[in-house]
Amino acid sequence: MWNDLRIDGERLWQRLNELGEIGALPGGGVCRLALSEEDRLGRERVMGWMQELGLEIHQDAIGNVFGLRPGQQPGPPVMTGSHIDTVRTGGLYDGNLGVLAGLEVVQTLNQAGIETRRPLCVAFFTNEEGARFAPDMMGSLVYVGGMPLEQALSTRGIDGESVADCLTRIGAVGERPVGRPEAHAFVELHVEQGPVLEQQGITIGAVEQVQGISWSEYRFDGCSNHAGTTPMSLRRDAAHGAVATAAYVRQRVEQAGGHQVGTVGRMAFTPDLINVVPLSASMTVDLRNTDDSVLRQVEEDVERFARQVAEEEGLAFERRSLARFEPVDFDPEVVGLVETTARRLGYSVRRMPSGAGHDAQMLARVCPTAMIFVPSVGGISHNIEEYTAPEDVAAGANVLLQVLLELCQSPDVPRENP
Amino acid sequence: MWNDLRIDGERLWQRLNELGEIGALPGGGVCRLALSEEDRLGRERVMGWMQELGLEIHQDAIGNVFGLRPGQQPGPPVMTGSHIDTVRTGGLYDGNLGVLAGLEVVQTLNQAGIETRRPLCVAFFTNEEGARFAPDMMGSLVYVGGMPLEQALSTRGIDGESVADCLTRIGAVGERPVGRPEAHAFVELHVEQGPVLEQQGITIGAVEQVQGISWSEYRFDGCSNHAGTTPMSLRRDAAHGAVATAAYVRQRVEQAGGHQVGTVGRMAFTPDLINVVPLSASMTVDLRNTDDSVLRQVEEDVERFARQVAEEEGLAFERRSLARFEPVDFDPEVVGLVETTARRLGYSVRRMPSGAGHDAQMLARVCPTAMIFVPSVGGISHNIEEYTAPEDVAAGANVLLQVLLELCQSPDVPRENP
Repeated sequence: MWNDLRIDGERLWQRLNELGEIGALPGGGVCRLALSEEDRLGRERVMGWMQELGLEIHQDAIGNVFGLRPGQQPGPPVMTGSHIDTVRTGGLYDGNLGVLAGLEVVQTLNQAGIETRRPLCVAFFTNEEGARFAPDMMGSLVYVGGMPLEQALSTRGIDGESVADCLTRIGAVGERPVGRPEAHAFVELHVEQGPVLEQQGITIGAVEQVQGISWSEYRFDGCSNHAGTTPMSLRRDAAHGAVATAAYVRQRVEQAGGHQVGTVGRMAFTPDLINVVPLSASMTVDLRNTDDSVLRQVEEDVERFARQVAEEEGLAFERRSLARFEPVDFDPEVVGLVETTARRLGYSVRRMPSGAGHDAQMLARVCPTAMIFVPSVGGISHNIEEYTAPEDVAAGANVLLQVLLELCQSPDVPRENP
Repeated sequence: MWNDLRIDGERLWQRLNELGEIGALPGGGVCRLALSEEDRLGRERVMGWMQELGLEIHQDAIGNVFGLRPGQQPGPPVMTGSHIDTVRTGGLYDGNLGVLAGLEVVQTLNQAGIETRRPLCVAFFTNEEGARFAPDMMGSLVYVGGMPLEQALSTRGIDGESVADCLTRIGAVGERPVGRPEAHAFVELHVEQGPVLEQQGITIGAVEQVQGISWSEYRFDGCSNHAGTTPMSLRRDAAHGAVATAAYVRQRVEQAGGHQVGTVGRMAFTPDLINVVPLSASMTVDLRNTDDSVLRQVEEDVERFARQVAEEEGLAFERRSLARFEPVDFDPEVVGLVETTARRLGYSVRRMPSGAGHDAQMLARVCPTAMIFVPSVGGISHNIEEYTAPEDVAAGANVLLQVLLELCQSPDVPRENP
């Protein structure tokens, strides 16, 4: 019987737009930086909705908020949620969709008078974006014990303020110790933030992995010379090191295939004059893969190539690691549940990795976890142009509803995370 | 008898340093931008020396200055000289050496009581550097009729002032119409501004050509995307267009060999973020060769390559020409005279092209012309570190003295420029 239950797409769409009015930007989009006044107003609104839906609200010491719907049995709730903070020029869907779809699931269950076996919990985590305080995914990282609370609280933002001071100012310091409530399982609905689903005309992504990320800065130092009077054989051209390495990144990444991606997003020459052989050149390399062994191989090969070019050209060479995260595998059974549920509901579905980071990758450390993706128009995200069509929003929320119900009702799925 | 005549190296060195005090920079080097107050003071000093040496001073309408030493016969003088303006952070040798070595030749002849058959003329030309007013080599260009006087006078500099106003302010507007006096031949002594002579341990360069120059800006426009969530196959990466083309420039230039050089001195990505596939990328390409047909082939091949990469990647592509000068061939007989003279005086010598532009390339349009190069330490120029050793300065001036004497005394060398 609960198999036929469906969410109210219009109600969810309306909440998305209502929350999007808080911190709305003149040209569209929204700015609700973590722990800002706009974030406070957003939290107030969402907690207001939680209260209206009869959820029991808990706030922990890092400002994560949990709305609990009791079940027939005690024990850890099945958890869903995401975040409501945004980047400086954010959209209405990133994060917000996962939280508000959770509330829509609760309201649907309330209206249908369904009492689940396990409790259900809708959460939003503090500072997922990292646009004001580094690192990103801070709230969920602290929740799973990946960062000491004290360290997170003493973190200072781009404006010099500490997380602790901002939490206090906006009244977001909860009584709960971090790590409570424990979750039986976690499922996060999110917009893809990439173009794959739209390009392939697929409605639901069953996210099975989050890509590992490797960020490096490469720097080459040579000798600045006159572009006309210096024969090629006498040059120590720093730009050559950077250009050859950047070209190799593309080639090596394509050779690796699979989910391997690689981006040279920044490049700077000094002195940057048309008629001067550059003295120094720096560039960034962003490499990602769901397969850590391939990712490591590509990282090593790029560095080896750069070192060799530098040696041949007589350049000093330095690689600086800016960030390194290992890939995360989601729980195969929960991923499978997302996939079969989408298919059962008549939606096209594909398994896929996430190229961006999400709270779910932190939760995966402590409970069986998966994510549901819905299409992002044009693959655009972290941008006021971010958009997901109402029917895709509704589709994602319906899959979320059925997956959560299955996890709440099933006595033995999922087993503990291996 | 005059074959054994030698200049006074110390006296020349002293004048170089004395002129270098005008507009001297705190850390060394000199700033005498064309038609600035410092340039006025420099002109005054050099014209004072001309006067002391008994030269008849003429100034033309673009501020070029000619110091004439009469000969036994009337007719066009054998001319030498260069420029005394500098770039913003210039050295003491670029340009100045050619002018002051000319004066040293005159003083040497005066002291030896030698009256030459043809008149001798030491010139300095206005705004060779182009650091304040474009184009560079303006004074010599106007002198040879390559640019109408009015156009040059109305040119505005980087500070908005016109050449006409600046000439008037510093009192450099002469009575002479441009193009007078005509020259029987022209020989310019200059520092190499490159590393070749120093690297090969050679004292004198007999410059037989000036490289043709091709400056272009390449611009690629694609689509900005998330570096994590966008598969390689769905990218339209503007940076890829620029990087691949820059790598090709290097490869194609090395394949061309000979005097072909190529430099990618500027590169800029938008938005220039580590985790965003660049929306647009622009770069400059500086190509030079003494062989115009090869230069054209390389230009075409680079553009064709860029267009093809852009097409494959789905990028908009644009090439904008920023400058294009054809190569200049100097007079074979005058070049030969420089070479044999250097050898006769016991200096090591090689024929070579000039990779930079010089007043001599303008004079080559109207009379038999060549240049003499002396080594630049480290190939450094347009830089306060510019340096040429006193013995090389003296060697160059001695070759200049003997070449000028040969041209002044010989009844038939050189014949008219073909």
